Amino acid sequence: MESNMIFQDYESEVQSYSRSFPVVFTTAKDCTLTDESGKEYIDFLAGAGSLNYGHNNDTLKNALIDYIQQDGVSHGLDMHTRAKAEFLETFRDLILKPRNLDHKVMFTGPTGANSVEAALKLARKVTGRHNVVSFTNGFHGCTLGALAATGNCHHRNGAGQALSGVTRMPYDGYLGENFDTLELFRKMLSDNSSGMDIPAAVIVEIVQGEGGLNTASGEWLQQLSLLCKEHGILFIADDIQAGCGRTGTFFSFDPFDIKPDIITLSKSLSGYGLPFAITLLNRQLDIWKPGEHNGTFRGNNHAFVTATRALKTYWADEKFASHIHARSEQLKHRLNQICDSHPQLYRKGRGLMQGICCPFGEMADEITSACFKHQLIIETSGPEGEVVKCFPPLTISEQQLDEGLNIIERAFADYFEMIEPLKKAS
Amino acid sequence: MESNMIFQDYESEVQSYSRSFPVVFTTAKDCTLTDESGKEYIDFLAGAGSLNYGHNNDTLKNALIDYIQQDGVSHGLDMHTRAKAEFLETFRDLILKPRNLDHKVMFTGPTGANSVEAALKLARKVTGRHNVVSFTNGFHGCTLGALAATGNCHHRNGAGQALSGVTRMPYDGYLGENFDTLELFRKMLSDNSSGMDIPAAVIVEIVQGEGGLNTASGEWLQQLSLLCKEHGILFIADDIQAGCGRTGTFFSFDPFDIKPDIITLSKSLSGYGLPFAITLLNRQLDIWKPGEHNGTFRGNNHAFVTATRALKTYWADEKFASHIHARSEQLKHRLNQICDSHPQLYRKGRGLMQGICCPFGEMADEITSACFKHQLIIETSGPEGEVVKCFPPLTISEQQLDEGLNIIERAFADYFEMIEPLKKAS
Amino acid sequence: MESNMIFQDYESEVQSYSRSFPVVFTTAKDCTLTDESGKEYIDFLAGAGSLNYGHNNDTLKNALIDYIQQDGVSHGLDMHTRAKAEFLETFRDLILKPRNLDHKVMFTGPTGANSVEAALKLARKVTGRHNVVSFTNGFHGCTLGALAATGNCHHRNGAGQALSGVTRMPYDGYLGENFDTLELFRKMLSDNSSGMDIPAAVIVEIVQGEGGLNTASGEWLQQLSLLCKEHGILFIADDIQAGCGRTGTFFSFDPFDIKPDIITLSKSLSGYGLPFAITLLNRQLDIWKPGEHNGTFRGNNHAFVTATRALKTYWADEKFASHIHARSEQLKHRLNQICDSHPQLYRKGRGLMQGICCPFGEMADEITSACFKHQLIIETSGPEGEVVKCFPPLTISEQQLDEGLNIIERAFADYFEMIEPLKKAS
Amino acid sequence: MESNMIFQDYESEVQSYSRSFPVVFTTAKDCTLTDESGKEYIDFLAGAGSLNYGHNNDTLKNALIDYIQQDGVSHGLDMHTRAKAEFLETFRDLILKPRNLDHKVMFTGPTGANSVEAALKLARKVTGRHNVVSFTNGFHGCTLGALAATGNCHHRNGAGQALSGVTRMPYDGYLGENFDTLELFRKMLSDNSSGMDIPAAVIVEIVQGEGGLNTASGEWLQQLSLLCKEHGILFIADDIQAGCGRTGTFFSFDPFDIKPDIITLSKSLSGYGLPFAITLLNRQLDIWKPGEHNGTFRGNNHAFVTATRALKTYWADEKFASHIHARSEQLKHRLNQICDSHPQLYRKGRGLMQGICCPFGEMADEITSACFKHQLIIETSGPEGEVVKCFPPLTISEQQLDEGLNIIERAFADYFEMIEPLKKAS
Repeated sequence: MESNMIFQDYESEVQSYSRSFPVVFTTAKDCTLTDESGKEYIDFLAGAGSLNYGHNNDTLKNALIDYIQQDGVSHGLDMHTRAKAEFLETFRDLILKPRNLDHKVMFTGPTGANSVEAALKLARKVTGRHNVVSFTNGFHGCTLGALAATGNCHHRNGAGQALSGVTRMPYDGYLGENFDTLELFRKMLSDNSSGMDIPAAVIVEIVQGEGGLNTASGEWLQQLSLLCKEHGILFIADDIQAGCGRTGTFFSFDPFDIKPDIITLSKSLSGYGLPFAITLLNRQLDIWKPGEHNGTFRGNNHAFVTATRALKTYWADEKFASHIHARSEQLKHRLNQICDSHPQLYRKGRGLMQGICCPFGEMADEITSACFKHQLIIETSGPEGEVVKCFPPLTISEQQLDEGLNIIERAFADYFEMIEPLKKAS
Repeated sequence: MESNMIFQDYESEVQSYSRSFPVVFTTAKDCTLTDESGKEYIDFLAGAGSLNYGHNNDTLKNALIDYIQQDGVSHGLDMHTRAKAEFLETFRDLILKPRNLDHKVMFTGPTGANSVEAALKLARKVTGRHNVVSFTNGFHGCTLGALAATGNCHHRNGAGQALSGVTRMPYDGYLGENFDTLELFRKMLSDNSSGMDIPAAVIVEIVQGEGGLNTASGEWLQQLSLLCKEHGILFIADDIQAGCGRTGTFFSFDPFDIKPDIITLSKSLSGYGLPFAITLLNRQLDIWKPGEHNGTFRGNNHAFVTATRALKTYWADEKFASHIHARSEQLKHRLNQICDSHPQLYRKGRGLMQGICCPFGEMADEITSACFKHQLIIETSGPEGEVVKCFPPLTISEQQLDEGLNIIERAFADYFEMIEPLKKAS
Repeated sequence: MESNMIFQDYESEVQSYSRSFPVVFTTAKDCTLTDESGKEYIDFLAGAGSLNYGHNNDTLKNALIDYIQQDGVSHGLDMHTRAKAEFLETFRDLILKPRNLDHKVMFTGPTGANSVEAALKLARKVTGRHNVVSFTNGFHGCTLGALAATGNCHHRNGAGQALSGVTRMPYDGYLGENFDTLELFRKMLSDNSSGMDIPAAVIVEIVQGEGGLNTASGEWLQQLSLLCKEHGILFIADDIQAGCGRTGTFFSFDPFDIKPDIITLSKSLSGYGLPFAITLLNRQLDIWKPGEHNGTFRGNNHAFVTATRALKTYWADEKFASHIHARSEQLKHRLNQICDSHPQLYRKGRGLMQGICCPFGEMADEITSACFKHQLIIETSGPEGEVVKCFPPLTISEQQLDEGLNIIERAFADYFEMIEPLKKAS
Repeated sequence: MESNMIFQDYESEVQSYSRSFPVVFTTAKDCTLTDESGKEYIDFLAGAGSLNYGHNNDTLKNALIDYIQQDGVSHGLDMHTRAKAEFLETFRDLILKPRNLDHKVMFTGPTGANSVEAALKLARKVTGRHNVVSFTNGFHGCTLGALAATGNCHHRNGAGQALSGVTRMPYDGYLGENFDTLELFRKMLSDNSSGMDIPAAVIVEIVQGEGGLNTASGEWLQQLSLLCKEHGILFIADDIQAGCGRTGTFFSFDPFDIKPDIITLSKSLSGYGLPFAITLLNRQLDIWKPGEHNGTFRGNNHAFVTATRALKTYWADEKFASHIHARSEQLKHRLNQICDSHPQLYRKGRGLMQGICCPFGEMADEITSACFKHQLIIETSGPEGEVVKCFPPLTISEQQLDEGLNIIERAFADYFEMIEPLKKAS
């Protein structure tokens, strides 16, 4: 393929997904990607959670084209625009008010990492403390401040310097079901010589996407929230991957009785795959000075337009949530079936961020490679890349979800019939 | 204005430009912004350098609408797309090859800060050294790694923690014209007990936009480059604000005989104000492992489309450079005239990033406020905000540039006629 | 007391022990301190473990006076002296060889903290890793590098800056008897996204003196040692307080089957309370360059003389160990008796570093104050100062140990008879 | 030599001075060291400034032996002792009061590095700032906090981790005589985007001993002191090497009109080469909490005894200062003579810390080696070890000083007559 040569010659070796899916894509619609040769692929990756409403969703697309055609402001730094006002009003009315969240919206640079950086900076400023607690297997981004909170050593090693200012605590279930991991945190907070500097904040994912689809229970989250309140520690929910409906509700913590002090959102917030991120702040925390955290692309007006339309289309009533719920149950059922057939496997995650945990990463790689050959785009996550991670657009139909799952099912079946015997023989 | 209330109630206090220009903008075209009431403003801010080709540039707009209408991939993580291939080919042919730059392109998160983070991480990885030298008055972004290299204490204080890993050296001219600031750097590098850990890299802006339109001379840059080579230090040119034609050439260092090892680009790279950033790496440095520095929005396909069109439209021949040169001379001439009339003032900067340095920041604020009243959008920069900074789109016409400058000229005249006498009286 | 005024007027508020024992001491002999008024005190503090052979031990005293009278080199930087050679030969013959320890001796600055700093620096240099694991309730000193490894927040807060480079793991028993605290460490080491950077070393006290007389079991230590070997992590035993016979053997880890890569020693090493510290290095680790870690007082020749004499007098055969063992059993027995009488109390520690854990720090303070009134010098330790810590010279006689314990016993009895009822009444 | 084998086999490679003087010393008296074979050496090293009153000074020796014989407390942690009271009274009466210094005395761990650590910690605590400014070629010790302030890369590399929290400014004269190095500091402090975080303190040596006998002028020090006052920065004078009379006055800054907020003292403070260090604090700064910075050997009673005697013997009147002055002039005169004979050389330093700067370090090494052969012990300093550093005991006689200088003179003469011609030939 000639068009691949330019990537080989001119794109940095840092590229990653393109290695798993070595074709050149041209167009995309809803849950389908098409490559240069016209071959179509079902998308169970969804831009790592950035395309919850599918590719080039027509409703959003029309709104965007209209805006562009009318010469709506495309870039305005953080100046007020009509598009921003409409986003804020819509976000207030459909997301914040129904949840009694009295947060203000901070438009950070348009990446999840930037939203995390803003959250951590603010927590440190407000409390005057330097330490932050993050959790094992947490992923929060690759810029230096966010990277310190990220667990993955592959990414941490990229820093080229020591990462500091973060203490790691074990996530819910990290030491098995019978051990309450908060015990350690609780003990260390109340012990004057534990060596833990009282943190400014905890930053936690309600479901750990990159970390392997680990889920925190409501009880654990509530206990964590209480512990934070006792010690004046801010609770930051990083909902970049699990938010915007991925688990069935707009925020992944909606089913639980917690109110995070700070919430980070990005990925599917624009709804159209456009770079966009915000940090929601309990309004008492909003001690920022003008421009103290800034950036050229904070406030992407194209994203305001599509985000507003996405909120109005999908979150004004319960229909979309019901749809996600139905698809999540379908996904759960099918994954359970696969795991029942192969006792080495087990299901993980919740909502439309579920997957199958393989005994080792190499097996998961074989599965996703086989899927790609059968025109399903799907990736792995987890510390060893051992989890086959189903991340379809939330708008996927029952039928297309089944089609994708058929491919996965067959890949596992083939693996256990053919590849494993071969391996054992060798 | 009702529409302002939502910002007051729901947008974080971190907002900044919106305080200087307290209206709500709706549309924008070329060098003009329009607010809700239909009032038009000449734009001498240009998205802080992100709109070098003007707002909603028709050529780029058409390309973008076409792409969206054809359901071109909007978000593809870092997967290969046709749009990306075309951008790479165009960038290679029009930018890299004519300059004998043998760099590879790294698609970082779509912000300048992210591009800087990637550059610093790589420099540290490649050299195994932790220290980086940046310069007084340098601005490189607000995420933790980039912020450590940034000089501005307003932004540094936002970190809520100590910033480390960076040694500051005086920029060209920092201690007056007669003192070669590289003397200190040279001495410290060759002195075993200077206390300077040999740095992985220097990161330098060829013109310091935020720092107050300070310019480095070609000789200083060449000496710096030589010094880096002698000590195995990587030379990072941060061309985020001064690049993409702002100084008259695509890269701001084009007039000088230097080849940076790493170059950061963002802001006007997409040409349409869309979030986009790349880091150019001398290909020997490309030791990244797959995905070692990653991010959801690396590779913004909409930006690929507009960037490609912008390069083909403006950088395939010398016409645009000639146009910028003419406008730069015009700007210089008019600013000199203003300064000649008011001996407290002096001109700074080069190309279409020039401005007027006031004796103190308050004066500059009065000037830009007065300009806004007369429908010119313009901002200040410099350690005290003392520089009135002319940053029009590069595509501005002779006439509109003059119109804007007339407003500035009048604002200064009014200031010296009316405001200053009042102040002296009080 | 007039002589107290000079301390009030001219000594910094940082003073601490002098607040608990507000008299001016003049002379001291064996296990007894005498104040200006001639009042005698039994010493159950022993210079926090620096006077294991008692005050002004006659054997050591004679050796020291002889050396001084003969104008033996008192200060020689790290130059070779006859006194140093004799110390090295004696230490080799009586300590290293019998234990099959093939370590080299590094003469660090003459404080425990300095020995720890040297150990941590070397571990980082050898492994090229920056992280070090220390344990909850660990105490390793107050200089910046050692302080980062120290758990006590009172001391940590003294730094005035963030302390970095150390990850804290729970010590043996930290989460109760039924939880193997190494599980967390083991899991995090083997998990690629745990967020724990593989450490250069662990630094651990076999018995935590300042931390509250917590003891690590042999099994836990062996498992820790194995875990270190698996991951190429160096094992640093900080034996500054528990070493030199305090637990009954020269090294506190002698009863267990472990060979630390690095061992820190100080406090009672000189035997006479003279400043002295060494770091023992597995000889493969001795990659120091000449003078890379240095200091003016490394190699205190007076200390060489007394240390040599102490080793020859007490560690050439098993008699002294037997004596310590007998006294330890006596101490254990008496402390158990006290605890049996007062069920709120329990005994902690081993050897001649045992104590009584009170339900809260205030009670322990009342006890030690009462003891001082009855002419026993004794201090508390633990995160809340809740442990009454018996630390007599190891040379103490059966009778004097009993005398001291009688005072403690009475103090507890009085407390429960008189003070507690009063408190309950109020 | 058999006795050398134990060092080779059992002492760490970190040893340094012993490499320059590969004999085993036994006794020492005043300005003379004697080795095992009875060979005598004139001592121009004086324990790197720890033996200002010579080896085993009889007056101090008698006081020390008396104290030991009477069973004076040898080790008392920081408890009050009669010996400590006498030291404090004497230090108050002979040192502090005559200089109108209203400082309090903090007994730190008994090393210069520990005194520096305490000074830096306190400065950060008091100001709430993290940054500290130290100067090029400064040496402040090898524990992590002190090492960050130390310039020497040989020592810095020993850390095995990045050193942070310190900004380096050029020392007086660093960029030649015509450049006022404080200009940079002054500019950066007053510039909001210089990137220098306003420091808690500056730490400066009045004469840089290890850094190569560089001297700061009174005017420079006063300007620095003023600059500190303007910005609320604490002025820490590190007088560990240059203090205790080395430059002719007790404090090296006595001739200048400055009052440091914090002063570190160690080395010759005990007068007998015993480990001892204090930090003097302006009493308003004494916000330490009890034991916040502590250490086992803070308050070395043997050192109190000899220090008190040394102060009373040498600093009760002007005689000793006059003696030092005379010897300093003698030293200056002779060194100038040597330099006049060899124009490649020049003299540096002041008082009895003067030396000869060679064009390169290898020459200085040859000189000191030749001196050792002729029974003079002398070392080098400076970034390349290029300065032959004359550091005799201050008590040296005119005649013995001349004897030592004769050896140096001959070594240079021989070098230029014999070695250099050989080198040129090869």
